[in-house]
Amino acid sequence: MQTFKVYVLGCGAASPTSTHFPSSQVVNYNERLFVVDCGEGFQMQFRRMKLTFSRIEHVFISHLHADHCLGLPGLISTLDLIGRTTPLYIHAHPDIEKFLTPFINFFCEELSFEVKFECFSPEESKILFEDEHIKVSSIPLVHRCPSSGFLFKEKEKPKNLIPERVEYYHIPIASRQYIKQGMDFTTENGEIIPNKKLTLPPSPPRSYAYCSDTMYLKHLGEKIEGVDLLYHESTFIRENEERAKKTLHSTAFQAASVALQARAKKLLLGHYSARYKDENVFLEEAKSIFPNTFLSYDLSSWEV
Amino acid sequence: MQTFKVYVLGCGAASPTSTHFPSSQVVNYNERLFVVDCGEGFQMQFRRMKLTFSRIEHVFISHLHADHCLGLPGLISTLDLIGRTTPLYIHAHPDIEKFLTPFINFFCEELSFEVKFECFSPEESKILFEDEHIKVSSIPLVHRCPSSGFLFKEKEKPKNLIPERVEYYHIPIASRQYIKQGMDFTTENGEIIPNKKLTLPPSPPRSYAYCSDTMYLKHLGEKIEGVDLLYHESTFIRENEERAKKTLHSTAFQAASVALQARAKKLLLGHYSARYKDENVFLEEAKSIFPNTFLSYDLSSWEV
Repeated sequence: MQTFKVYVLGCGAASPTSTHFPSSQVVNYNERLFVVDCGEGFQMQFRRMKLTFSRIEHVFISHLHADHCLGLPGLISTLDLIGRTTPLYIHAHPDIEKFLTPFINFFCEELSFEVKFECFSPEESKILFEDEHIKVSSIPLVHRCPSSGFLFKEKEKPKNLIPERVEYYHIPIASRQYIKQGMDFTTENGEIIPNKKLTLPPSPPRSYAYCSDTMYLKHLGEKIEGVDLLYHESTFIRENEERAKKTLHSTAFQAASVALQARAKKLLLGHYSARYKDENVFLEEAKSIFPNTFLSYDLSSWEV
Repeated sequence: MQTFKVYVLGCGAASPTSTHFPSSQVVNYNERLFVVDCGEGFQMQFRRMKLTFSRIEHVFISHLHADHCLGLPGLISTLDLIGRTTPLYIHAHPDIEKFLTPFINFFCEELSFEVKFECFSPEESKILFEDEHIKVSSIPLVHRCPSSGFLFKEKEKPKNLIPERVEYYHIPIASRQYIKQGMDFTTENGEIIPNKKLTLPPSPPRSYAYCSDTMYLKHLGEKIEGVDLLYHESTFIRENEERAKKTLHSTAFQAASVALQARAKKLLLGHYSARYKDENVFLEEAKSIFPNTFLSYDLSSWEV
């Protein structure tokens, strides 16, 4: 089975603390690394996690608040220093160029690689990336500036051949790919062997949803139905719901409500406001309605 | 005696490592904080050292390479979040505005405080800041872009009155400040008491020099003669002197030569290239000619 893992590099809110860097994550799918938000200090945390810079191809930025993108200049600068030549794709709101281009012009006059801006409008859900294994789509969120979550979803995998049957029916190698796709097999003497006699269903496609920053959205769960792992911001607790509403953030209880509605398998909390000394308050609140909840923490990793 | 302390927040070279953040320091003089270079992650390290943001007034940037100034956007953004109202003075090469202004315009539309650029030309030595206790001057360095060190030097302190003599001669309070400045005292019946009978010399003024990034400069030591604490970059060791020459950096041996020429009291090394796994090679090399050498490390602090 392909690696499908989420690395949390930073899970603090706008003001980083002595224990939390600002928001940044890395999704490892099959040893291909996708950056999800890139707060200040990204490159230091990335090194601490012993990840490999050259495996990064795509960067997804949820929204253009400083705590979600100030790590980009340092990342670009370091990729330049180590002599990267392949393009780096940055998926973000179109305004990102206003912030990054002056930096690149100033610090990296002759950048060794191309930064390709793949801009998208966070108001609609759109496929931002896909290859033969996985698809990344945007999830419209609502925050103080245009904001988008990201859904990483494996594609339907081919069926698994049953080795004994393959041997028994002498199925030639050339035919196997069609059978894996669901076709029946016709033997040399015209007998049709139905697909279900030859295959086992594939493991169900796994998915990961990243939802930060956002106010509580009543219908968000429907859009990520059946997600295996959901990271949903929980900047506040229920006691401060008014503050959450005002700043367009969510409470831990609301994060759990989204997980419940989505019938998610697991919920990961993060983007904790620095005002809470003990983060277990988030955990207890969410667990009261969604028991399979975990607190993300800096330098942690999570299997999808 | 006034606090005079150097906090090392990061002492890595251009590529940060899992143990070293890029260059940044804080000088605490009498609870007034001066930032010296501001590499990425400054604000996180600053919090870890339990320093107070509101005590920062002046920032000195040695040169405009990314590893010495990418922490500025995060610092400004956080000062804005916590509602700072007093101006922040940034002393740097005039080009800093090209890098910082687009950032401020983009992320902090209505900044709660003023950023005052106090630009200077690193080619000449100049007083950048002074108050009644201390003076900060630039030290011209030579690097791949205009670069400047900084000399923090206490001003000559007033003499210390000898309490018994003050009492014996009934010296009025109004006269004492003059005597502290070195004047003699005339008693009511016209007797002149020479100053040296009334005072003890003040403790000698302390000084700290920050020299990074720079190639080895043969006469640098003369300009910081008698410095108490010298931080001098040691990106390489002697074995890689050619590489140091080519990149306009220094070796640990050259850093020690500067300390020796300056008759510095203590030498602090830093800005270590990531190529050396064991940093004791820097220490041993420098100690061979300047025994009172120390390796700086992230989150360390040093009395001047």
